[in-house]
Amino acid sequence: MSLTATTATKSALQVSAERHLWMNFSHLGHFADGRTLPIMVKGAGCYVWDEHGKKYLDSLSSLFCVNIGHGRPEVTQAGADQGRELEYYPTWDAAHPPAIKLAEKIASLAPGDLNRVFFTSGGSESVDSALKLARQYHKMTGNERKTKIVARSSAYHGTTMGALALTGIPAVREPFEPFTPGGCHVPNSDVYRLPEGVSPASLAEAFKERIEFEGPDTVAAVIVEPVQTAGGCYMPATENYFERIREICDEYNVLMISDEVICSWGRIGEWFGCQRFGYLPDMITTAKGLTSAYAPMGAVIIRDKICDPFLEGDNSFLHGFTFAGHPVSAAIALANIEVFEKEDLLGNVRRNESVLRGMLESLRDLELVGDVRGTGYFQAIELVADKATKARFAPEVEAQVLKFFSEDLLDRGLIVRVDDRAGVVLQFAPPLIAGPEQFAELEAILRPSIAEAAARFL
Amino acid sequence: MSLTATTATKSALQVSAERHLWMNFSHLGHFADGRTLPIMVKGAGCYVWDEHGKKYLDSLSSLFCVNIGHGRPEVTQAGADQGRELEYYPTWDAAHPPAIKLAEKIASLAPGDLNRVFFTSGGSESVDSALKLARQYHKMTGNERKTKIVARSSAYHGTTMGALALTGIPAVREPFEPFTPGGCHVPNSDVYRLPEGVSPASLAEAFKERIEFEGPDTVAAVIVEPVQTAGGCYMPATENYFERIREICDEYNVLMISDEVICSWGRIGEWFGCQRFGYLPDMITTAKGLTSAYAPMGAVIIRDKICDPFLEGDNSFLHGFTFAGHPVSAAIALANIEVFEKEDLLGNVRRNESVLRGMLESLRDLELVGDVRGTGYFQAIELVADKATKARFAPEVEAQVLKFFSEDLLDRGLIVRVDDRAGVVLQFAPPLIAGPEQFAELEAILRPSIAEAAARFL
Repeated sequence: MSLTATTATKSALQVSAERHLWMNFSHLGHFADGRTLPIMVKGAGCYVWDEHGKKYLDSLSSLFCVNIGHGRPEVTQAGADQGRELEYYPTWDAAHPPAIKLAEKIASLAPGDLNRVFFTSGGSESVDSALKLARQYHKMTGNERKTKIVARSSAYHGTTMGALALTGIPAVREPFEPFTPGGCHVPNSDVYRLPEGVSPASLAEAFKERIEFEGPDTVAAVIVEPVQTAGGCYMPATENYFERIREICDEYNVLMISDEVICSWGRIGEWFGCQRFGYLPDMITTAKGLTSAYAPMGAVIIRDKICDPFLEGDNSFLHGFTFAGHPVSAAIALANIEVFEKEDLLGNVRRNESVLRGMLESLRDLELVGDVRGTGYFQAIELVADKATKARFAPEVEAQVLKFFSEDLLDRGLIVRVDDRAGVVLQFAPPLIAGPEQFAELEAILRPSIAEAAARFL
Repeated sequence: MSLTATTATKSALQVSAERHLWMNFSHLGHFADGRTLPIMVKGAGCYVWDEHGKKYLDSLSSLFCVNIGHGRPEVTQAGADQGRELEYYPTWDAAHPPAIKLAEKIASLAPGDLNRVFFTSGGSESVDSALKLARQYHKMTGNERKTKIVARSSAYHGTTMGALALTGIPAVREPFEPFTPGGCHVPNSDVYRLPEGVSPASLAEAFKERIEFEGPDTVAAVIVEPVQTAGGCYMPATENYFERIREICDEYNVLMISDEVICSWGRIGEWFGCQRFGYLPDMITTAKGLTSAYAPMGAVIIRDKICDPFLEGDNSFLHGFTFAGHPVSAAIALANIEVFEKEDLLGNVRRNESVLRGMLESLRDLELVGDVRGTGYFQAIELVADKATKARFAPEVEAQVLKFFSEDLLDRGLIVRVDDRAGVVLQFAPPLIAGPEQFAELEAILRPSIAEAAARFL
């Protein structure tokens, strides 16, 4: 919905895009009546520029991806250098040095015995792979009926049909029925809007209740994000939320999948999100920050105990992707991780996260700001019609508010997530190199925009 | 199964790979007892080299991918050059020049009104996307129950749960039940092994029968490869096979998806496989040769008439992938297509395909060679226990024959597909730059290997 209105004549690129490119999650018809599509041509640090030379603060790291910031030519060059040696070879009964070195590096950074890496081309493939692996693991260990996966409401886990079965957003699911069987959903950890009589502690118990309801013999896994993205940075419901979910999983022989496509690679101040909250999942799904999106790549990181049955005899995980472990992508991932280490990006997040949070908290003096939540460089503010009652906008007004922010913030030069999946939420995930200067800029854009929305819509 | 035995001490890379890398479709346990994993370190033209300096003829284009051949530094460099401008920006309600230019280029090469391009990160995502698009298209045009997709037996369409529902290979499916509903299968076009009383002409009619059986109101699409890969290059059953399938699709308002993840980008001598056989599908799914695998990328190419309902009002295809249209991958795809055009690779295939085919036909004097089939640079030979009766090997012998070829051909320096999905098939898909010199090398390796197998196993 981040389409901006302009009266300028459309560029040749605009015309071609409208004719030939089917953009993701986009309303193609909105290009009618003079609206133009933002066409980005350049990136550097925390900023991107469009075809007209307009500069934007990228407070979303281009969809939670560009953790090291834009415009690091040495990182893409590391891919081209690998290309001079071997630009591609599959990892089907074979391997190549970049995939091996990257798997070893990831294992060295991941906690506990998360030592085995299955590569994919992106987040949806990672989640689809984790679902398949959980099912086969249980089949191989004598629990043939364990096929269901418990996810959380409004969580986004991807769009391939396996991942979609776990995604908890009705609008994203409905056109594509019938779904892959086995997806079940429990309430998420939105403690800002806890229903009457529901305690935060009960939200972990919901997993136990659901497993009991479905039948423990039929549940293969639970999937949770360390901080849930969709709906706007839902934090753990209580301090021992994940510890309790881990206990429940152990009690019922259910695998715990930590979906860290967004929350790994420094986003919340640690290599992996589970490290921030002190739990050890059986699998981590990742993508995005793994390469800072300098090349497409994803991965599933797997505990030794889950891999062990697959090491026996002729056993095999009959699954894979042509581009899994792609040598150019792997070389870029290694160069990306090197930037993290050289520049102590995790340290930068830990040193500055309170500055980002403090700035957002300071916006609470504005009429619309109902909640501020998140951790690390992953924060959200929820905008409400009435702070005292937490009341949302009426549906038609809400649609206008969402449209206002999508257009107004872009006009003011800010790339941000205007999350429409549970009320009105502005979500921030700046590059990990960002600091007080960018947060001041962010405030200078947000404050007048939110004030204007209050004037218009209250 | 292409693991080769060696007595050499394992390299540090081997040890690390065995500890941390989960290879695709691989038997991880086979690394025990001294077997080593081929680790490729270099590629040039039609050849790759492993870590010990051993050279291999890559007669499979590294899993049907490297159509322009290995080792073109200018192609990966085109990616790095794009990276200097903009290394990543999503195509979610936005765009960037490389994705737009590539969409326009693809549309200019695709036949008919296949003018709209939805990008993905690879083949499985392309097929999952086509399935979802077919379902939503019918929902939006008043046919809510049209959700099933008819595919062919033993066909491989990918591994994400949507794609897997269409894949017709039981072994690849079984561990992952329950499947996404809606996949149905009809016989493929294996005319070499037509059952008694079945005519080649009846194989197209099988689609009609299946649509009638399922109920025309419930069938969304048919998916077919121009030449079916799994099982070994099954050609159209008759000259009008695809024409008849197209007619049946039109009769029942069923979309026709041409899965060209392998058969596009010159593999069978045309940009798109459907052009070789003269049919116009509603969607083409592609990947692999689109970039010659110099970077991960896939696409669905869609006819205007399928896109039209999505252009109206607030309609939207609520689907997408973070890495869809990735600027570095798109720049690499454009550089790849430029190589095709500059060097007339389609022409090279058309000029030399009969040389490849002639060489393979000449092997019919060998005892095991039962059938030779395919077109362009996509050919297969089926090996049988008895040429007169077409009898296959007994199951335990067949496993040994498959193992023999996997190891022996690798030992002789040949990368080839030993297809185990319907008997014993050797499959060839050389880079499109290959010519008589490589085909002579191929013969020099194949002939003694097949002769030795005959001596051992007959």
